[in-house]
Amino acid sequence: MPRPAFVSLDGLDGTGKSTQARMLAEWLTAQKVPVTSCTDPGGTALGAELRRILLFGREHRIATTTEAMLFMASRAQLVEEVIRPALERGEVVISDRFLLANVVYQGHAGGLSAEDLWAVGRVATGGLEPDLTLVFDLPPEVAVQRRTRDADRMEAKGDEYFARVRTGFNYEAGMRPDRYRIINAIPDADAVQRAARREVARLLADRGWNVSE
Amino acid sequence: MPRPAFVSLDGLDGTGKSTQARMLAEWLTAQKVPVTSCTDPGGTALGAELRRILLFGREHRIATTTEAMLFMASRAQLVEEVIRPALERGEVVISDRFLLANVVYQGHAGGLSAEDLWAVGRVATGGLEPDLTLVFDLPPEVAVQRRTRDADRMEAKGDEYFARVRTGFNYEAGMRPDRYRIINAIPDADAVQRAARREVARLLADRGWNVSE
Repeated sequence: MPRPAFVSLDGLDGTGKSTQARMLAEWLTAQKVPVTSCTDPGGTALGAELRRILLFGREHRIATTTEAMLFMASRAQLVEEVIRPALERGEVVISDRFLLANVVYQGHAGGLSAEDLWAVGRVATGGLEPDLTLVFDLPPEVAVQRRTRDADRMEAKGDEYFARVRTGFNYEAGMRPDRYRIINAIPDADAVQRAARREVARLLADRGWNVSE
Repeated sequence: MPRPAFVSLDGLDGTGKSTQARMLAEWLTAQKVPVTSCTDPGGTALGAELRRILLFGREHRIATTTEAMLFMASRAQLVEEVIRPALERGEVVISDRFLLANVVYQGHAGGLSAEDLWAVGRVATGGLEPDLTLVFDLPPEVAVQRRTRDADRMEAKGDEYFARVRTGFNYEAGMRPDRYRIINAIPDADAVQRAARREVARLLADRGWNVSE
């Protein structure tokens, strides 16, 4: 009996992680692996409300700490309502972003303590963490060209900010080589997907799933 | 030059803490002490949105962890937008509830770890804590009779829950006798106010304010 697995994808906006997440889900579904896909923040009725509040917050200058806590609230609900139940059903969960994004954006790039955000995240998620996190890496100037969302926010932040985000992702990935893999996102989507599948296939084989790349 | 001070009031709904907070503010204002009053959760535009979400959440069964994180987000913004600026102006801040309420309601009574909630709270508030917390204490059956808000929620929870809330407040107050005072809320509002003023007057005298009870 194969065991459930929890995979998250993260990295700068513009690295193609949402596309890659969708491609991974399609690949696994085609092989009859039961998959639940989700997006963090989001994925629940409450998450949708909170997304609206985060946009509202950008207009009303919410504090970085407040923003971090709102992401944590959205994630707590996503874990409770979507991710844990899927894992309990024995499925493979693929999440477009997870706690790491908070640690990097509000921590490494936003000035809060990364340690503190990990600690708050452990409480928000009840200690649940991805078995594997794929960190899609691009030079920020390439990511900015490719980005499709959050363009205004990205424009407003400037190059130095993106450099801090990228360094943050790479630092955190380097700290946990057992669970994090950096994927070079420069090649075309199919080539990046092959690299992503290789990592996911290895995890799933360990968990007793029979998948071919 | 008198120094700023941060006072919070907490306890079961129905103990009269909002009335007591208002009476304290009026008393200090009459003596020319600059006072900023606030309510947690609430007190900011974002806090008002989050209050709405918390009500929405009761309909949609949000998880206890989610609820705790939403309170933390609201408090982070209140600290940033209202409390810290007031303290920086040298004022006395009186807050109707603060972090302690989360620790008691979602922790002692709600099943989350009180330690974890203190830790998350330290991040949300940037380490700011009240110099003095007045915990208004009543037997739950008296508080239920007197309550004016949250009646439905209280009805739904039952006696055992309120007993846990009361025990939680008393436990936490007992752990920090330097900063917490339990005020017996059984007598009439004027008598309770005299007890509250005594504690606040002592703190403010230490801070160089000249106030008479």
